[in-house]
Amino acid sequence: MIPARLIERKRGGGTLDAPEIERFFGGYLAGEVTDYQMSAFLMAVYFHGLERDELAALLRVMIRSGATLDLSGLPIPSADKHSTGGIGDKVSLVLAPLAAELGLGVPMMSGRGLAHTGGTLDKLESIPGFRTDLSLSRMQEVLRSVGCVMTGQTAEIAPLDRRLYDLRNATGTVASLPLIATSIMSKKLAEGIQGLVLDVKVGAGAFLPEEDDALELAETMVEMGETYGVRTNALLTAMDRPLGGAIGNALEVREAIECLGGAGPDDLRELTLCQAAEMAIVSGVRPSPSAARAAAAEALDGGGALDRFASMVEAQGGDAGVVGHPERLPRAPVVLECAAERAGVVAGIAPRTLGWTVVEMGGGRRAVGDPIDLSVGFVLHVVLGQHVEPGDLIGEVHAADSDSAACACGALRDSVEINTGSSVSPRPLISHRVSAVGVERL
Amino acid sequence: MIPARLIERKRGGGTLDAPEIERFFGGYLAGEVTDYQMSAFLMAVYFHGLERDELAALLRVMIRSGATLDLSGLPIPSADKHSTGGIGDKVSLVLAPLAAELGLGVPMMSGRGLAHTGGTLDKLESIPGFRTDLSLSRMQEVLRSVGCVMTGQTAEIAPLDRRLYDLRNATGTVASLPLIATSIMSKKLAEGIQGLVLDVKVGAGAFLPEEDDALELAETMVEMGETYGVRTNALLTAMDRPLGGAIGNALEVREAIECLGGAGPDDLRELTLCQAAEMAIVSGVRPSPSAARAAAAEALDGGGALDRFASMVEAQGGDAGVVGHPERLPRAPVVLECAAERAGVVAGIAPRTLGWTVVEMGGGRRAVGDPIDLSVGFVLHVVLGQHVEPGDLIGEVHAADSDSAACACGALRDSVEINTGSSVSPRPLISHRVSAVGVERL
Repeated sequence: MIPARLIERKRGGGTLDAPEIERFFGGYLAGEVTDYQMSAFLMAVYFHGLERDELAALLRVMIRSGATLDLSGLPIPSADKHSTGGIGDKVSLVLAPLAAELGLGVPMMSGRGLAHTGGTLDKLESIPGFRTDLSLSRMQEVLRSVGCVMTGQTAEIAPLDRRLYDLRNATGTVASLPLIATSIMSKKLAEGIQGLVLDVKVGAGAFLPEEDDALELAETMVEMGETYGVRTNALLTAMDRPLGGAIGNALEVREAIECLGGAGPDDLRELTLCQAAEMAIVSGVRPSPSAARAAAAEALDGGGALDRFASMVEAQGGDAGVVGHPERLPRAPVVLECAAERAGVVAGIAPRTLGWTVVEMGGGRRAVGDPIDLSVGFVLHVVLGQHVEPGDLIGEVHAADSDSAACACGALRDSVEINTGSSVSPRPLISHRVSAVGVERL
Repeated sequence: MIPARLIERKRGGGTLDAPEIERFFGGYLAGEVTDYQMSAFLMAVYFHGLERDELAALLRVMIRSGATLDLSGLPIPSADKHSTGGIGDKVSLVLAPLAAELGLGVPMMSGRGLAHTGGTLDKLESIPGFRTDLSLSRMQEVLRSVGCVMTGQTAEIAPLDRRLYDLRNATGTVASLPLIATSIMSKKLAEGIQGLVLDVKVGAGAFLPEEDDALELAETMVEMGETYGVRTNALLTAMDRPLGGAIGNALEVREAIECLGGAGPDDLRELTLCQAAEMAIVSGVRPSPSAARAAAAEALDGGGALDRFASMVEAQGGDAGVVGHPERLPRAPVVLECAAERAGVVAGIAPRTLGWTVVEMGGGRRAVGDPIDLSVGFVLHVVLGQHVEPGDLIGEVHAADSDSAACACGALRDSVEINTGSSVSPRPLISHRVSAVGVERL
């Protein structure tokens, strides 16, 4: 194998056969293909995509690069959920304990912040003491005792994906359909689960903003799941604006705790309930979506989900007291309130600008391994369609210093579009449902 | 600067302004941008190109990354030549001493093999003892005493280009017009020369095989040269087949020595004479092309060029005895003669296959810094349009072992297309001349 020739072939729009995919990616794990060769290859994939057979071969290599969980001893059905990544998306934090309340085992392996989006692991680590680096065996212990576990991809699971994920984040190749699909599915299919729900984001803040691309991604991943015998449904959900009000690691944990307690923003609660119902369906624990949804709402409002979350935090070494005392989460030294400068209706909230601003504030990574400031971010005080007057609060900035806060406040004002008179037509929160039987517009 | 965001912008077809180009490439030299980030960026440039201002900024950053030769003390006019790279192209080895015979100072800095093409430095290093790592001051001493010097890009000259060149070779981003143009011109414009001749290859073996692309590359580089006050002419020359008969480092040196002695293949001699005439024109040492060409032919046939070559070899620490005793060059242990399998006319000789086969045989690099076998390669015994009978010798393979030889003989037979009856219409050896006044079809 001459790596440059395989890169050159993909660059020219050619295809690699399965043994070539295996040699190139296997060679990367073995140190025969360098990081700089892989990043060039990934960029060529960004431009030319992968053919069906290439995609299947890559998925196989990624799964086989590590171990697979064996959940056959688990006495309850298992399912998981994964989002393609957005701004303010803290659904997983609420959903894992909530699905456990519905009688599911949820072995959730998540990732870190990628480009302008936050990551579940970073958010969880803002809970003092919380460990996201569980071994496979400890992960299974927590799963058995609590019913859910939220951890990082262990060293044993899809190590190839771990390396590619970091590399893509640092080299601008996150937004590639085949790379997103194989990254997500290699991890999820190694979890040994029976059912999977995918939250595929669409709109300006998504990695694939266009609806057509998001649909293709959803269909690709649903097909991958079904091929490996995992019942897989996907929902296309709105990322033309942030989800909920909080953006930034500790701030999002705080909002998730509110939602777990039956409060919090409407859109966050609604999306979480729909995904919980889908998880119940793919794993067969509830016969109908409406029954599953009602049970989920009860678990939020009755306190069961919040208790389950606290148990999980404790089992993973974290300070379960944050549930009652969210002020124990990291807090930024500077909190600046940002006001509207004119009257009108909130016609848009640009998610990508806000996401990148959090990175600039230190809440995300510029390069692999950078430390991050868990306390910084935004809390929005407006939603789409809301009328505001000059001086009304549109949001808070939580920052490390006043310069950074002032700068972020400017970014917040730029992101919130205030129109006079024009009507607002945001995307529906959930627009499509993709399953083995096809695409359903909701 | 967040490197991934600049990569992402270029990936999306956007442009970087001059300060951003300076920060990204300067950051690479300073270690703030990694190899894997640069290779991803270069792949994005492969797909989207560089705008005029980006190109000018990159050229400036590359030149300024190092020192510039000061040839103001040289009592004779100076000029150089550079080829965009082909198979069997050993013109530089003949041309540097030949141009010196015409009264020019030739401070030639060359490169190593790139992808499927050979490099002048590798070829020269097959002469026992020959040093291609001269310092800037030693380079100028040799130039003054011999009239020509052939060395590697010193550590002082365009260090940014050195690093990018190696990276591109290992990551399949050689064939990019803006990257080729800036790489060549950054080195040449740092040489302090008055005139420059560019040999821009066109045809299947060239990095940019299409005539339109080759013409654009020639025009881009001529404009860059003239902008920096260096009189620059370019010739578009045929690389739809190899140049001359020898392909492979030591084998090409041997053929170059034949040409320096007035013999050797017709196409090699013809192209060398034309380029020598162009060098005389851009530097003003001969009033007319015909006078320059006649003087150059005399220098080959009269032995002057060969003597000058021997002096240069000696001045650079090499064994000048190879001139009279080419058997002192590295020789492969296995030489296999390959015969035609059917009768017909040689309609094509695929250069790229032969070039990659030399790499496979060990005569080129798979990754940066790989050692290479200088002895291996091919010697063709047929030219386009020649009639052959079954059993006629089409070429020799020089290899490290018999397996490799048999394999290479197969590649040679695949590369030589033998047709019955069809007419053969190869590209003209030199098809266009590009200068400050425009494009002239020859």
